[in-house]
Amino acid sequence: MSKPFVFEKPAGMRDTLPAFYQKNEEIKNTIKKEMESWGYQFIQTPTLEYHDTVGEASAILDQQLFKLLDMEGKTLVLRPDMTAPIARVVSSSMKNVAYPLRLAYNSPVFRAQQREGGRPAEFEQVGIELIGEGTASAEAEALALMTEVIKKSGIHSFTVAVGHIGFVQELLRDILGNEARAGELLRYLNEKNYVGYTSHVKQLPLSSIDTQRLLKLLDLRGGIEVLDEASSLNPKEKGKQTLKELKSLYKLLQEYDAAKNIVFDFTLFSHMSYYTGIVFEGYAAGIGAPIASGGRYDELLSRFERKAPAIGFAIRMDYFVEALGNKNNQMKRQCILYTGERRKEALQLARSKREEGGHVVMQDLSGVENVDEFSKRFDEIHYLIGSQQGEDIL
Amino acid sequence: MSKPFVFEKPAGMRDTLPAFYQKNEEIKNTIKKEMESWGYQFIQTPTLEYHDTVGEASAILDQQLFKLLDMEGKTLVLRPDMTAPIARVVSSSMKNVAYPLRLAYNSPVFRAQQREGGRPAEFEQVGIELIGEGTASAEAEALALMTEVIKKSGIHSFTVAVGHIGFVQELLRDILGNEARAGELLRYLNEKNYVGYTSHVKQLPLSSIDTQRLLKLLDLRGGIEVLDEASSLNPKEKGKQTLKELKSLYKLLQEYDAAKNIVFDFTLFSHMSYYTGIVFEGYAAGIGAPIASGGRYDELLSRFERKAPAIGFAIRMDYFVEALGNKNNQMKRQCILYTGERRKEALQLARSKREEGGHVVMQDLSGVENVDEFSKRFDEIHYLIGSQQGEDIL
Repeated sequence: MSKPFVFEKPAGMRDTLPAFYQKNEEIKNTIKKEMESWGYQFIQTPTLEYHDTVGEASAILDQQLFKLLDMEGKTLVLRPDMTAPIARVVSSSMKNVAYPLRLAYNSPVFRAQQREGGRPAEFEQVGIELIGEGTASAEAEALALMTEVIKKSGIHSFTVAVGHIGFVQELLRDILGNEARAGELLRYLNEKNYVGYTSHVKQLPLSSIDTQRLLKLLDLRGGIEVLDEASSLNPKEKGKQTLKELKSLYKLLQEYDAAKNIVFDFTLFSHMSYYTGIVFEGYAAGIGAPIASGGRYDELLSRFERKAPAIGFAIRMDYFVEALGNKNNQMKRQCILYTGERRKEALQLARSKREEGGHVVMQDLSGVENVDEFSKRFDEIHYLIGSQQGEDIL
Repeated sequence: MSKPFVFEKPAGMRDTLPAFYQKNEEIKNTIKKEMESWGYQFIQTPTLEYHDTVGEASAILDQQLFKLLDMEGKTLVLRPDMTAPIARVVSSSMKNVAYPLRLAYNSPVFRAQQREGGRPAEFEQVGIELIGEGTASAEAEALALMTEVIKKSGIHSFTVAVGHIGFVQELLRDILGNEARAGELLRYLNEKNYVGYTSHVKQLPLSSIDTQRLLKLLDLRGGIEVLDEASSLNPKEKGKQTLKELKSLYKLLQEYDAAKNIVFDFTLFSHMSYYTGIVFEGYAAGIGAPIASGGRYDELLSRFERKAPAIGFAIRMDYFVEALGNKNNQMKRQCILYTGERRKEALQLARSKREEGGHVVMQDLSGVENVDEFSKRFDEIHYLIGSQQGEDIL
C-alpha cells in the first residue's frame, strides 16, 4: 500500500492538531462551565440515529445527511444536529422528568458538503435546549446565556441579531396572499441574497404600498427602534402582539445586562426549518459566519409525542475559536532528557514538576535519533546525562 | 408520525443521561490531565475515514466496520479505533515533527455488533500513542502511565496483565512447525477459550514433551517468577532475549513505582492484529472486561510510509466509570423559583451563587406546570415569589 491515497481524508473531514486542540478545549471548558452554572445538565446521544426518527425530524436537507444501512436494511444517519436527538431523549429515557428541562450537549455533527474543499462536513457544537417553557423568561434566559458565554470566553466585539420567523412569515403571507409566494422570498432571505430579494419584489404585481412594505423589511435591522419601524409595516394583530413581546424581551435582557450587544434583524431567517418564533445569531468581528445560533421551536417535540414549547442555541466551536484569534496561552512544554544511569533522578524531577502542573516529557536519550530536531519542540529542556552530577538547563 | 419507532435508537447505540455524563466527564478530566502532565498532546481525527486507508490498517474485523459510500462512490468507515488514524496523521500533517512523538486522544470509536442487545457499537476511548521509540523506556513509560491513570482516578483494586505476542507466536511456530497450526491455537488464546486450547493440544500428533510445553503455556500467569518458568519452555534465542527484556522492563517499572499491580500473562493475546511485542490489559475488581488495553505495534507506521516502532494504550471509558462505582459526588443542584416582580432579586441571587461555583437554575414560576414534580429535581430551592420580602429556603 504505497499509493499517495494512504494519507487522504474524505471530503470535508479535518484533523485537529495539538495547538488548535488545546485552544478549543480551553474555550469549550469555559463555555461548558458557564452553562452548568446556569443549571444546564449535559447529556450525550449516539452518533448514529435512524433516518425515520432523527433524520426526518432534523432541519437539515436530505442531501446533506450521511446515510448508511444497518444489518436489517434500515437507513441510519450520522446526527446532523443535536436538537432532534435531544427531543427523542426527552420523549423516551427522560419522559418522566417534569418540564421545564434544561439540557446541554457538546458533540460533533455531520453535514455532507457537495463540493470538495468547501466547508467542514463534521464540526463540533456546544449548545443548550430549554424545553417545556414558552415564556419570555425562557427567551431572555437563552439569549442572556449565549451573550454571557461569548463574553466569558473573551470575545468582546460581537453582536447578537434577533429576528422572528413567525412575524416575517405572516407578513409575507399577508402581502403575497399565499404560502408558495411567501416561500420564494423567504428563500432569498435564508440565502441572505438581498439583491435577489429586491429585484424579485420589484417584479411582483403588487400595489406600490405593498412593494414598499416588502422592501422596507430589508431595512428592519438595528436597535430597539426597529420594533417601531416594524409596526409601520402594518402587521396583523398577531404581528403587533409579537412586536410587543419583543419589546418586553428587550427589557428583560436589559435586566440581565445582556441588551448592549442585541440588534433586531427581521431579515434573519434560518435554514433550520423547525424554528417557529424568535431566531438569533451571534456574530464576532472578522468572522464571516455566525459563531452561535438558535431559536424557538414549539412544534418539534410534538413529533416525538411530548408536545412542548422549546428554545435552544448552539455554539459553533470552529468559528468561535477563530474569533478568539491567536492568544498565546499555550502550556509551556518541558523535557527531561536522560540516560539510563540517571533515570531515577529524572523520574524524581518529572514527578515534582508534574505535581506543580507542568507538562513534562521524560525522554531516554537512546530513544532519540535526532536530538537537535527533537529538542526544538520544547520550551525548556533539562539534561540528566552521563554520570556527571548537576543539571544543565538549556 | 405516531409510531413507537420514533423513540428507537439503532442497535448498540446508547444515550448518556446527566448523572453518568457528569461522572464520565470528571473521570475523563483526571485521565486527560495526567496524560498531559506526562507531555502527551491531544489531537482529534475525523469520525469518517477512507476504508482503503484507515479501515484496512485498523485491526478491526471488516464485518465490524460501519461503512458508507461518499458522493464519488468511495467506501468510508466510521473510525473503529484511533491508532490507525493517528498513524495517518503522524505520516501526513505531522510528518515533519521529529520522533519520538507523544500523542493522546479522546474519541468515540465504532464497532458494529452482530447481535441486538449486545455490546455497545459506539464507545469512548481515551488513550496515548508513543511513536518512534523502540526502547524498554518507552514500554515502561506506557505501562507506568496507564497504572498511574488508573490510580489517580480512584481505582485501587486492579491488575495490569503483561504478555508478549512475539514470544508466544514464535514458541508455537517452533513447536508446531508452521504458521497455520500456530494460528489455530492463537485463536483459542484470543477467545480465552483455555478448555478448547487444551483439548486441541491433546489431539495434536506431538511428542509428550512438546504437548507439555504447549499446556504449560497456560500456566504462565503470575508474578516475576513466570519469566523463569517461561525459560523452562526452552524458547529459541530470540525468545530468551524477550524474557531478558521483560525482566529489565519489570525493573524499570519498579523504579516507576508501578510494578506492584503488574502480573505476567503469556496467554494474553489481543484481537488487535497490529501488535508485535508486549501487549497489556488493565483489569479492575468486579468488571468482566479490560478497562484499558494496549501494546507495541512496530509495523503499522510503515503502512503509512513513516516506519517507526510504537506503543500505545486506550482506556475504555464505559467500563472504567463502571469500575469506579457509585461515588456520590454529584454537584448539588439549586433552583431559584421567582415571579416577575422579583426577577431582579432572583438575578442577583443567581449571579452570586454562580460565582461561588453553584449550579443554579433560575425559573420563572409562570413557566412551570407542575411545581411539585419540578421541585423534586433540586437539592435546594429558593423562593422569590410575590411582593413579600425575605426568602424561604426549602
